[in-house]
Formats: sequence, C-alpha cells, structure tokens
Amino acid sequence: MVEFQFSSRAIPTLLLLCFFLIFGNFRNAEARNRHYKWDVKYEFRSPDCFKKLVITINGNTPGPTIQAQEGDTVVVQVNNTLLTENLSIHWHGIRQIGTPWFDGTEGVTQCPILPGDTFIYRFVVDRPGTYLYHAHYGMQREAGLYGLIRVAPRDPEPFTYDFDRSIILNDWYHKSTYEQAAGLSSIPFKWVGEPESLLIHGKGRFNCSQLSTDVCDMSKCSPFTQTVIPGKIYRLRIASLTALSALSFQIEGHNMTVVEADGHYVEPFVVKNLFIYSGETYSVLVKTDQDPSRNYWITSNVVSRNRTTPPGLGIFNYYPNHPKRSPPTVPPSPPAWDDAEPRLAQSLAIKARQGYIHKPPTTSDRVIILLNTQNNISEYRHWSVNNVSFTLPHTPYLIALKENITNAFDPTPPPDGHEFANYDIFNVSPNANGTSSNGIYRLKFNTTVDLILQNANTMTKNNSETHPWHLHGHDFWVLGYGKGRFDVNNDTKKYNLENPIMKNTVPVHPFGWTALRFRSDNPGVWAFHCHIESHFYMGMGVVFEEGIERVGKLPSSIMGCGQTKGFHKP
Amino acid sequence: MVEFQFSSRAIPTLLLLCFFLIFGNFRNAEARNRHYKWDVKYEFRSPDCFKKLVITINGNTPGPTIQAQEGDTVVVQVNNTLLTENLSIHWHGIRQIGTPWFDGTEGVTQCPILPGDTFIYRFVVDRPGTYLYHAHYGMQREAGLYGLIRVAPRDPEPFTYDFDRSIILNDWYHKSTYEQAAGLSSIPFKWVGEPESLLIHGKGRFNCSQLSTDVCDMSKCSPFTQTVIPGKIYRLRIASLTALSALSFQIEGHNMTVVEADGHYVEPFVVKNLFIYSGETYSVLVKTDQDPSRNYWITSNVVSRNRTTPPGLGIFNYYPNHPKRSPPTVPPSPPAWDDAEPRLAQSLAIKARQGYIHKPPTTSDRVIILLNTQNNISEYRHWSVNNVSFTLPHTPYLIALKENITNAFDPTPPPDGHEFANYDIFNVSPNANGTSSNGIYRLKFNTTVDLILQNANTMTKNNSETHPWHLHGHDFWVLGYGKGRFDVNNDTKKYNLENPIMKNTVPVHPFGWTALRFRSDNPGVWAFHCHIESHFYMGMGVVFEEGIERVGKLPSSIMGCGQTKGFHKP
Repeated sequence: MVEFQFSSRAIPTLLLLCFFLIFGNFRNAEARNRHYKWDVKYEFRSPDCFKKLVITINGNTPGPTIQAQEGDTVVVQVNNTLLTENLSIHWHGIRQIGTPWFDGTEGVTQCPILPGDTFIYRFVVDRPGTYLYHAHYGMQREAGLYGLIRVAPRDPEPFTYDFDRSIILNDWYHKSTYEQAAGLSSIPFKWVGEPESLLIHGKGRFNCSQLSTDVCDMSKCSPFTQTVIPGKIYRLRIASLTALSALSFQIEGHNMTVVEADGHYVEPFVVKNLFIYSGETYSVLVKTDQDPSRNYWITSNVVSRNRTTPPGLGIFNYYPNHPKRSPPTVPPSPPAWDDAEPRLAQSLAIKARQGYIHKPPTTSDRVIILLNTQNNISEYRHWSVNNVSFTLPHTPYLIALKENITNAFDPTPPPDGHEFANYDIFNVSPNANGTSSNGIYRLKFNTTVDLILQNANTMTKNNSETHPWHLHGHDFWVLGYGKGRFDVNNDTKKYNLENPIMKNTVPVHPFGWTALRFRSDNPGVWAFHCHIESHFYMGMGVVFEEGIERVGKLPSSIMGCGQTKGFHKP
Repeated sequence: MVEFQFSSRAIPTLLLLCFFLIFGNFRNAEARNRHYKWDVKYEFRSPDCFKKLVITINGNTPGPTIQAQEGDTVVVQVNNTLLTENLSIHWHGIRQIGTPWFDGTEGVTQCPILPGDTFIYRFVVDRPGTYLYHAHYGMQREAGLYGLIRVAPRDPEPFTYDFDRSIILNDWYHKSTYEQAAGLSSIPFKWVGEPESLLIHGKGRFNCSQLSTDVCDMSKCSPFTQTVIPGKIYRLRIASLTALSALSFQIEGHNMTVVEADGHYVEPFVVKNLFIYSGETYSVLVKTDQDPSRNYWITSNVVSRNRTTPPGLGIFNYYPNHPKRSPPTVPPSPPAWDDAEPRLAQSLAIKARQGYIHKPPTTSDRVIILLNTQNNISEYRHWSVNNVSFTLPHTPYLIALKENITNAFDPTPPPDGHEFANYDIFNVSPNANGTSSNGIYRLKFNTTVDLILQNANTMTKNNSETHPWHLHGHDFWVLGYGKGRFDVNNDTKKYNLENPIMKNTVPVHPFGWTALRFRSDNPGVWAFHCHIESHFYMGMGVVFEEGIERVGKLPSSIMGCGQTKGFHKP
C-alpha cells in the first residue's frame, strides 16, 4: 500500500497535487482495460513472526490491490508456479454479468489452473465499491492468496473524505492448509482449532519468545501502521477474509461512520466497534480529531467464539509521531465474545442510503429455507444445509450444464426446506446423521427468490455459531434478521422492503435467522456458502443454476478436468 | 507385508501349505492381469514417531506391494484424492515396452493426474525381479508415495531359498515437500539438510522425548521386525527409495550373498554391509544360522555424507523370541562415511551371473559424456549436466513429439560433452554459472549409446557427492567405474564387455566416473536423472528420445496439460 509521506520541501507536494488532478481526469475517462500479470508461488514469509510457507502473488501476501474504475475491464493473467498444486481465484463481490465462467470457483464455474498454466481472467467491474479476491479451491485461501479490489465511481459519492485507505483483516494459522484439511477429513475428527494470530493487512505478532529464531523471529515482523494527518477525514475500507473468526475492529478513541457495505452505500451510522465477518467489506469514515501528540491502537478481536487468539494490534499513527511508537495506553478491551446483541444490532442498523435505495420486489416466487446443521456422515463430521452436506463435483457445473454432460452430478436437487416444524433449533439434534450430495438448486430465470438462513444448535450443547454466507454472481437484499426459529407467517410481515441494504455476504447469528431476497437474473451457476473456509470444506454450501440456456459460449480455458478432459473448442 | 505366523494347531498350517501349492500352480499359468485399485490421499502418520502429513495409498505408506508373474499385465487404477494436488506414478525398473505413455513421469510421458481423476496405468512386467514404484512429480515421492513391485519368474532361478521377504529403505524428513522445494528455490538457497531419520520398511524412531506427544509420540511407533525361523535361507529383497541418502544396510552377525540387482541375476558375492543407493534394488540370501536364542539388529546408516542422522534400526527376530525384544548387543558400527573405497569395491564386484549374461555390443555409435556439476543460475543454486540445468516442460515431451507440437520445448539439444580437457574436476569451478534448458537428446533408433557419468567437485572445497543415476525405459550395461577424470582413450579399453551387470540405477562415486551402455531400442521418451529427489528438482537430469515415429497411438488419458489442454482423441 502506498503510504502518505510528508516532505519539508514544497515541490514534491505540488507534484503530488498535479498527480491527483491528472488522476481526477482519468476518473472521467472512458472505460478501459486494467491489466495485471500475477505469478502465484509458494514462499516463506513471517506475517506474524512465525515463518511459514504462504502463497504469494508477485512475492506478496496480501496480493496487489486491483484498482479500477466503474465500467472498466479487469484482465488478470495468472501464472501458476505452485509446482504440484492447482489453483483458482474468485473475484468476490464482482457479479460477472455475462462472464459467469470467470467467477473463479473451482468445481462450479471452472476447472482448476494447472501448474505451469497461465489463465486469463477478464471481467467488467460494473459497480463502484470495495471488493475482494481470493483462492477458491480446497482451503487454499488460507495459505495467503487474497487481496482487495477497489472500484472508483464515475459519479460523485454521497460523502467526502480526504484520504482513502484499505485494511484487510485476517486470522492466521501456523498449520498448512493441507494439515488442516486432512484433520477435518479424519476419523476421529480433528478440528482446525482457533487461529494462532490475527493479521491486520497481513501483519500480526505471535509471541514466539519460546521458539528458535529460525522458526519464529520477533525481530522479523512489525505491526501494521496506518499513518494519518491530524484534522482530516479518512475513508477506511475495512475487509475481512478470515478463515474462521468473526471480528470486532476498533480504532482506539475514534468513532467510525459506516458509509459502504459490500459496494453499497449505507445510511450512515456510527460505531465504536465494527463487527465484520469473513467475506464482508465496509467503508467507514474516521476523523483524525484526537490528541495529535500520540499514536492510537488499531485492534481486531475475535467475537462469537470463546477467543483464545490474542488481539490483532496495529498503530494508528498521527503524523509526525514515529510510526512505530507504541500508544501510551493499553489497547481497548474488546466486546464480550458471547454477547450477540450488539452484533445483531449492527446487522439491523445497516440500511441502504437514502437516494441510493434499490427497492426489492415486494413478493417472491420461491422461498428456500436453509437449515444450518452439523452432521455426521459415516462417522465423518460435516456441516449441512437441510441435512445435506454439499460436495463439489470434479466436472464444473457450468460446463456440465451448458455442454449437456448428464452424469456430472446428482440430478436430484437438495430440498427447499427442512421439516423444522419438528426440528428443535435450540438443542443438539437427537439424530445428527446426514447425507451428502452435489445436487444443486435450479432456479427459474428472472424470478424472485427468498433465502432463509436458519441457524441451529451445533452438536455441542448450548452452542450455535455465526456463519457468514456469501452469494456469488449477485447482491441480495437483506430483508431481516431474527432470533430463534423463523416464522413463515409472521416474520415475513416484518421484512424491510423500504430500504434494505444489498450485500453479497451476510451473517446468520447464533440461534437466529437471516432473510435474503434476490433476482435470478444473472445467467450462470453460482455458489452460496458459508465463508468460513473449514465450514465450506465440510459441506456448508449450496449452488444455484439460473438461465443456463442464456449463458454465452464458454471459453475453452475453463475446461480440461473431470468429464471436460479433452474438451476442445476449435 | 504378510508376516509368517506360527500356529500350534496343524490345520491352519496345512491350509497354508495348500495355498502355496495352488499358488505354485498359478506360477505356471498363462499371463494374466493383476488389478489394483488405489486411493491416494493425504493422511497423518507417524512412521518415525513424529506425526506428519504423508501421502498414502489405500491408507498405507509404503503402499501395497504389487505381486505379479513375468509376462503379466499390471493394471493400476489410481484415484487422486489429494484435494488440490496432482500426481503421477512411475514404475521404476519396468521398461514399458510398447507403453511408453505409462512410464508415469510427469512432464516427460504424461500430464499430471488431477484431483478427482482416476487414471489407469496398464503395463506388462516382462522380466522377473524386484522393482519399485513411486511418485514422479515435483518432490512428491518424499511424501510417502512409494512401494515395491515383485515379479516372479516363469523359469527356475539359479539359487534357492525358503522364504522371500522385502524391505524398502528410506530416509525421512519432517518438513513437507512443499517446504523443501520452496527452500531449494529461494534466494538465499536453503538446502533441505540431512533427514531426521532413516526408515526400514516405513518404520523408524525419531528421538522426540523433548516434544509434545501431540506432535511426536514414541509410544505410537515401533521398529520394523523381520521374524525368521532358525536354520533357513531367506531371500531378502532390499530396495532403497531415499530422498537423499546413500545407505549401508546390515544384519548383525549375518553375511549376505548378493544374487540379484535391479532385476538381473548377479554372480554371487558375500557382503557384511550392503551399500545401496536411491532407486536400486538387490536380492540377498541370508542364512539364519546364528544363535537362535536372541534377536539381531537390522541397521541402515548414511554413507557418503557426513551423517547426522541416527541409524535406522530394526529387529531380525529369531522365532520364537519375542519380536520386540531388543538384541542384547549394541548395534554394529557403520562403515566410515567418507571411505569411498568399499563402495567402489562393491560396485566393481557386481557382475552378471554365469548363464545369465547378456553380452553388450562391443562398440558404440555415440558417446555422451555427462559432467555432473553444481551451478548458479541467476543466483539460484542448481545441479547441471555439462553446465546445463534441466527443467521440465509443462507439455510432456512424448505428446509434443508424437503430436508434432513444435514449440513445447527448446529444440536445441544439450551438449554431448563438456570441454573438460579444461575442467578441473578436483576443484571448485572458478566459474560456476550455468544455464537452464528443457532441450533433450535425440537418439537414432536401434543404435548403441554410451553414457559416461563424470563426477566433479561441488561448490564446496574438497567435496564431491555420490549420485545414483536412474534410466527410464531401459536397463544399461555397467561397463566400468573409475576414479578421477574419465580418459576416453584408455579407460574405454578397460571396459568389462564380458559379464557386465545390467541395471537401471547406478552410482557415480565421488570424484569418479561410471560408464554405461544401452541400446536405443525402446520407442519413447525417457528420463535419465540423479535419483536424489532434491538433485533432480534442481536440474540434475537429461531426457532421451528414441524411435518416436514407432510409438503407437497415445492414450488421451495422458493429455490435458500445457499445449495438450483440450486435446481430444475421439
């Protein structure tokens, strides 16, 4: 990230000003192509002091930020140099209208990219806002293959600020994704456990004073620092790509005004802690109006799970204090991990901004209720939806459906609901056995679909987790959140049809429900899944097909695996 | 491995006898297909007590032993369930006559097998003897994907024995192959180091009393035990698939008579220590003629490198002593690691057995001198042949050549020799810079080719290593070994043309040379490389093409990567 640097000489400042003026003009220029060339590689890095093999893009994790303007075409040439491992990259929040084959979801929209192959993603970023990219293959995202997409608007925004900065939050494991995945697929089940540390824009600090400096060297890492000029307004784009953790993000002594969520303008509201779930992005405005003679803590903390991971700590550095000077205070205490109320309150507070409201259809054509449960299948632990644990096929759905490969996946769709009149969401299920399937939901094109995420008790007594669900290819309207069992007759009446926010990722809170609505108007095949890496790996997801007959000619570059091996488009 | 078990009741023994009689009849039956179905997977195992992710076949490492009879067709259905990693399996020592596409060498003869794919290898085992199989992709072999192939003869053998047993030797690293490969490809170069332990048939013992039992549990592993009946003759098939180490193998108090090497009968000679290099197999006869009231140590020890790895220890268990009862002695001392003389002596002792001599052609049509050096290329450390470090293409040679894909690899062949009239093999090269290439040697079909492996000083003063070179698709005659620089005029006169052994793997000793001869009579594309995993990874190999125009129609299953993506053979 380019950091703002002061100079005592006036000339560089003027040059900088010129640059911004020129850049301002570019903003109004015609849509253009933004080219990126990425080498993806395993390298040793010590993001939290602990040395571990990570996946880098051009040597870095997080990878480079994609910067584009609304309407631009982003072209990313990905060169896989992982030696023996394939990859695919998902452009999280980009709807891929007209290019469903470049959604980057292995098994759903494409075959994986082989070592030595160069794959070109090419898609339009049709809306301004803050988006993400990350690996979408196995549990590869956790190895460090992720970054930000910032799309500048063509029109003026409904808020002003002096500087625009980005911070990606993450949690960080010291075990490899291979070890984690093998544990999840073992009998007995071996859970991944809590992450060793929390990263703020790729930087953390694991206390490794007990370990050899060859393995973990606390002199080899430093906390993230955000240098700010006193008396200004900063737009901070906060994004989370945690593997597991729900987070509370805070800047000591500074309120944050939420103005954007997942690329949509939010009716502003002020928070002290921003709760953020894996796959979400927010823009907040922060005034640097505190005592400028010192620095302040930036913190991220686990919520919703009984945290054992120490807080992620960064420095909000008021210029000209030294950027590494520790604040004179102790970092602010995080909210209670098990108090879901303020998290639910924040969810409810997020509404579309006046003047930027996209009204949802007032009725829906189909309601799919998705009961989230933990299950056992042949002694293996899984997550399921309506007792069906999702598995990915090896022939991507998009290709199978478009090319009429009939036996690539189970043709029986999963159920639209669960007999949860009889299902006690507040207790451990007496029969935790489930089934697994790679069947998908087929949606009628251009219809309105409601998705009700229903949370339940896990296989542990008095326990229900937070699941951030992410929909590919769409934004959805968030119609409501509630506690307990969703009531089809009454809760629907309380839907917010006036100013619901549109998002692509949304939490379902412990023992609660979340109601979403979207239009099946984007021809393609789209995943909808819990964004917790291990949960999706364990089957917590579904897939929707809509308008497959309207999908254009598939590029042959996405083919070559499963039953598309040998597919040749001359 | 099936262990011999005594029973006090006679009936099971009789049943066993019947089984052997029936099996004996099968031996004389017609060639048949031997079917195997393998699931390849990452799983946690503790072969030397230290828990680590390994690649298993049907849950095991080493994988199942393939048992077949001379002339049989082996069919192995490999199901890749490695999640995000591809694989390929090489059938080491099997010449693949008529099936060069099933040699299993990624980048040379096939595309890698994708996760979710099932690949069927089908090949004839045309000669009796002891062979191996192992992964041949990246450094995947070291993760545990390896095993034995035993091919029973149709004709009587020139020696007799009571029991036939197999022992694979290996060395074992605790770092993953990913970590090792990343280190080798780093600046500064990070060498893999010496292995943590030596495994005897997949079992070792790492002293981890300092580590938590979650990571390393000495109660979770046990030494390899070979139970034997006193007063019998055992044929032990000893094979090495070490990643790095040259080994000395010994059975305390027992001489070993070498009778087979790489599938060829050896004029018997007796050793106390069997020196064995990665990729080699030997059969030795051992008489259980020692004091039957105790057990004896089986040991493997590193030679040729200044060993820091403790000996591999197993138990030669004289029935009815308890198989876990430690011998009353200290394990025998290994030979001096840096004394190359006895190793050279063993190499020279290995001759073809009278009555089983295949005479080599007395002259050759082409001599290729292969100078083995360490080099720097753009600050990266490599191994090279004639200053050219080998790199694998992403379009396999076999497909590129057969299908006339012209730009899949460098058309310039590497040099047939090196100006080593001027090269001082006894000193560090003053100019260690090399180049890299994926160019290959094109051999005229049905000609006689001599390969002279010339060792040299590494980039470390007074240091030269042992390199076991393995040729695919062929056995070669071992015409001679020598010290120092090979003399084209005089050393050739000392070639053993009378009774040279045929092998597929042979060492070149420190500061020495090894002369080989083979016939380019097997249409295909064949790798010839140092069998040390890290050395081949660093470029220590070459590839030969011969008779590509005689290669039959390639199966489409080997295609799908690089420029063969989309290849479809209807």
